[in-house]
Amino acid sequence: MIFTNREIYLDNSATTKVSRTVADTVYDMMVNEYGNPSSLHSKGLEAQHRVEKARSILAESIGADSREIYFTSGGTEGNNLAVIGTALRRRKTGNRIVTTSTEHSSVMEACGYLEKQGFEVVYLPVDRYGAVSEESIYEAVNEKTVLVSVMYVNNELGTIQPVERIKRIIKRKNSQAVFHTDAVQAFGKLPVRAGKLNADIITVSGHKIHAPKGVGAIYIKKGTLITPRQFGGEQQSRIRPGTEAAALIAGLGQAVSEIEADTISAINELNAYLRKRLSEIDGTVINSPENALGYVINFSVTGKKSETMVHFLAERGIYVSSGSACAKGKQSYVLKAAGLDKGLSDTAIRVSFSKYNTTQDIDALAEAIICAKGIIADI
Amino acid sequence: MIFTNREIYLDNSATTKVSRTVADTVYDMMVNEYGNPSSLHSKGLEAQHRVEKARSILAESIGADSREIYFTSGGTEGNNLAVIGTALRRRKTGNRIVTTSTEHSSVMEACGYLEKQGFEVVYLPVDRYGAVSEESIYEAVNEKTVLVSVMYVNNELGTIQPVERIKRIIKRKNSQAVFHTDAVQAFGKLPVRAGKLNADIITVSGHKIHAPKGVGAIYIKKGTLITPRQFGGEQQSRIRPGTEAAALIAGLGQAVSEIEADTISAINELNAYLRKRLSEIDGTVINSPENALGYVINFSVTGKKSETMVHFLAERGIYVSSGSACAKGKQSYVLKAAGLDKGLSDTAIRVSFSKYNTTQDIDALAEAIICAKGIIADI
Repeated sequence: MIFTNREIYLDNSATTKVSRTVADTVYDMMVNEYGNPSSLHSKGLEAQHRVEKARSILAESIGADSREIYFTSGGTEGNNLAVIGTALRRRKTGNRIVTTSTEHSSVMEACGYLEKQGFEVVYLPVDRYGAVSEESIYEAVNEKTVLVSVMYVNNELGTIQPVERIKRIIKRKNSQAVFHTDAVQAFGKLPVRAGKLNADIITVSGHKIHAPKGVGAIYIKKGTLITPRQFGGEQQSRIRPGTEAAALIAGLGQAVSEIEADTISAINELNAYLRKRLSEIDGTVINSPENALGYVINFSVTGKKSETMVHFLAERGIYVSSGSACAKGKQSYVLKAAGLDKGLSDTAIRVSFSKYNTTQDIDALAEAIICAKGIIADI
Repeated sequence: MIFTNREIYLDNSATTKVSRTVADTVYDMMVNEYGNPSSLHSKGLEAQHRVEKARSILAESIGADSREIYFTSGGTEGNNLAVIGTALRRRKTGNRIVTTSTEHSSVMEACGYLEKQGFEVVYLPVDRYGAVSEESIYEAVNEKTVLVSVMYVNNELGTIQPVERIKRIIKRKNSQAVFHTDAVQAFGKLPVRAGKLNADIITVSGHKIHAPKGVGAIYIKKGTLITPRQFGGEQQSRIRPGTEAAALIAGLGQAVSEIEADTISAINELNAYLRKRLSEIDGTVINSPENALGYVINFSVTGKKSETMVHFLAERGIYVSSGSACAKGKQSYVLKAAGLDKGLSDTAIRVSFSKYNTTQDIDALAEAIICAKGIIADI
C-alpha cells in the first residue's frame, strides 16, 4: 500500500490551491499597493496600474482588447452577467434562449430566472458522454433567439463541447443572436482564444487556475451590448461597477501569466495512467468520454456509494469529488442528462488534476480504491 | 517643515491598508486551507468552517444571528442586493422608494435603475452639513413605500444620519416598508448593532476596515424577503450563490475581530488636532459638521483647486481625497446637495483617518498645505 502523509488533492475542478507566486502577489498588494484604483493620487494610480496590467495579461491570453475584459467576483457572477445581461438587453428583439441541459448551475438558474421573466429557454439534450450536437443547436435557434449559451468544457465529465463551430451555426439561422460560452473549466487548460471560439461573451474564473476565490472575468466582444447587473461608480465602463478587488485581480493576472501551453501533455499522461490503473480494478466504469479534457475523469466504482468513497479517501488525505461542489450531496443533473443509470450516478467519482499532481498521486488513489472496495459495503 | 519619507495615508474612507494579521490569514487560506467550502470532503469542510467562523464573528459584532449574514463581493454589490432585491420582491405591494440625495453611488444608481422599472424614488434633500431631517422622512413615506434607504455615515462629509430613529418613523406611516442602511462608512467605527439600528438590511464592506477589497457582507433580518441578484448553486441559502471567497471571508472575520471600541477616542483626538491646525491656516473652511464621525473631515482650502492640491500632497507622500474615489474627478453631488457653493466644492479636500494615523501625520499635512498655498496659483 502506498500511503503518504502528503495531501493528495485531486479535486481541482472544484477549486485549486493558490500558487505561491500568486499568493505573494496578492499579499504584496494588500499591504503595500493597497490604494483604491479610483483614487486620484499616486497611491490610487499604482493600484490602477496593477489592475490594468492584469487586464492586459488576460486580454492577451485570450486574444482580445483590454477594453473587452471586465473583472467580476467569479464564474457565477460572470455567467449571470452574460446570460441575464444579454437577455434583458435584447428582450425587445426576442425571447428565446438556447442552452444545454448540462450547463453550470449559474447558467441553469439564471435561465430559470429568465423563464419567470417571460423568456422561453430551450435546454438541449446531450449524448451519453455529455456532448450536445451541432444539429440540435441549428434546429433550436430561430429568429426570436437572443442568446445561445454553451459551456466549453463540462465540469463533471470533462466533455468538450463543439463551441468553435457554434457561432457559425447560429449565424445561419439568426445573425443577431449572441453566443456566450462558460469557459471556466477550459481556461488555462485548452486554448481559449476569442477569435477562434468566435464567442461574443466568454466567462472565466480565477480559482480554477491557482488564483484566489472571489475573482474572475468576462470577455465581452466590442459591440456586444448587455445590461449591467449592478449599478454604482464609473468603474469598468459601468458594466461592472464597484471598487476593483485590486489585489485579487493582480493575483489573477499573475496566475494567467503562469499558464503554460505544454502542461496539457503532462496532464494527458496522468489521465492515461489513471485510466490504465482503473482498468485494472474490477467494477470501475469510466463515465467521461475518451476525448474529454485530460484534466477531468469521471468514473464509477460500481456498488460503492460516492459519498462514502469520498469520505474514505479523504480520511487518507486523498481529495476527490462525488460531483460538482456547487450541488453538495445532491444527485447530479449532469450525469442524469447524460443518461447514466442510478447505479452509475450514485457511485460516480470525479478526479480532476492540476499541474501539481504526479503519478504517485494516482498510485495512492488506485491503491486506496482497491482497499475501499474490500471495506465499504455495497449499496 | 516636517517632511518624512514615510507614506502618510489619510484616505481611509476610500480604502484602507490591509492589516498584517488579516493579510496573513488570507495568505494562509490561499495556500493551505484552499478547499472549496461546498466540497464534501474534509478539505472542503475545513474551508467551510473558516467561512462559518467568520460569519459568526460578523454576526456577533452586529448582534445578529449567523443565518442573517450573507457575504458579498463588497459594498456596491451589497447595496444593489439590498435596494433592488427588496424593491423587486415587493413590487406588488407598492412602487415608492425613499432615500436621500447624498447616498453612495451604488444606492443612487440602483435607485435610478428602479426608476426605469417603474418605481418612484424620492431623493430627500439634506441640510448644509449633509443631514436628512426626520420630518422629511416622515412626510415622504406613504402606504406605497416598499423601501427606505438611508446611509449611516456619509462618505464625503462624515455626517451621521439619524438612522436609529428611522425605523420608528417609517412604522408610523407604513409598517411593511423595509429599512435599509448602508453602514459601509460606519462599520468598525461606530457601534453597528442590528437591534439598536432597528434596520431590516445593513450593508458593510471589508476594505474600509483593513480587510481586502472584494469582500463585504449584508445583514438581512430574519423574515425580510428579497429577490437575489444572481443565481446558481445552493451557497448562502441562494440569496447570494457562488463559491464563497473563503480566504477573503476569513480575512474579513479577522478584521472584524480586530475592531476596538476605544479607537474612536484616539481618532477624535486626531480630528480635534487637525481642526486646530486647519484653523491656524488662513482661508480654510471646514465643510463637515461639528458632530460628524471623527474619522472624516472635509474642508476647503479656498482658491486652491482640489485636484491640484491632491497631486501636490501626493508628491510629498501624503494621500487625501478630493471627494469620493468612486467619482474620479467629477464634481461631488454630495457637496452640491449639501448646498456648498462652487468655490468651496472645487477646493474641497477629504481627510479620512485610520488607527494607523498619528499627530505627526497631521503636522506633515498642515505644513504641506501651508507650503501649497504659497505655490499653487488660485483658481
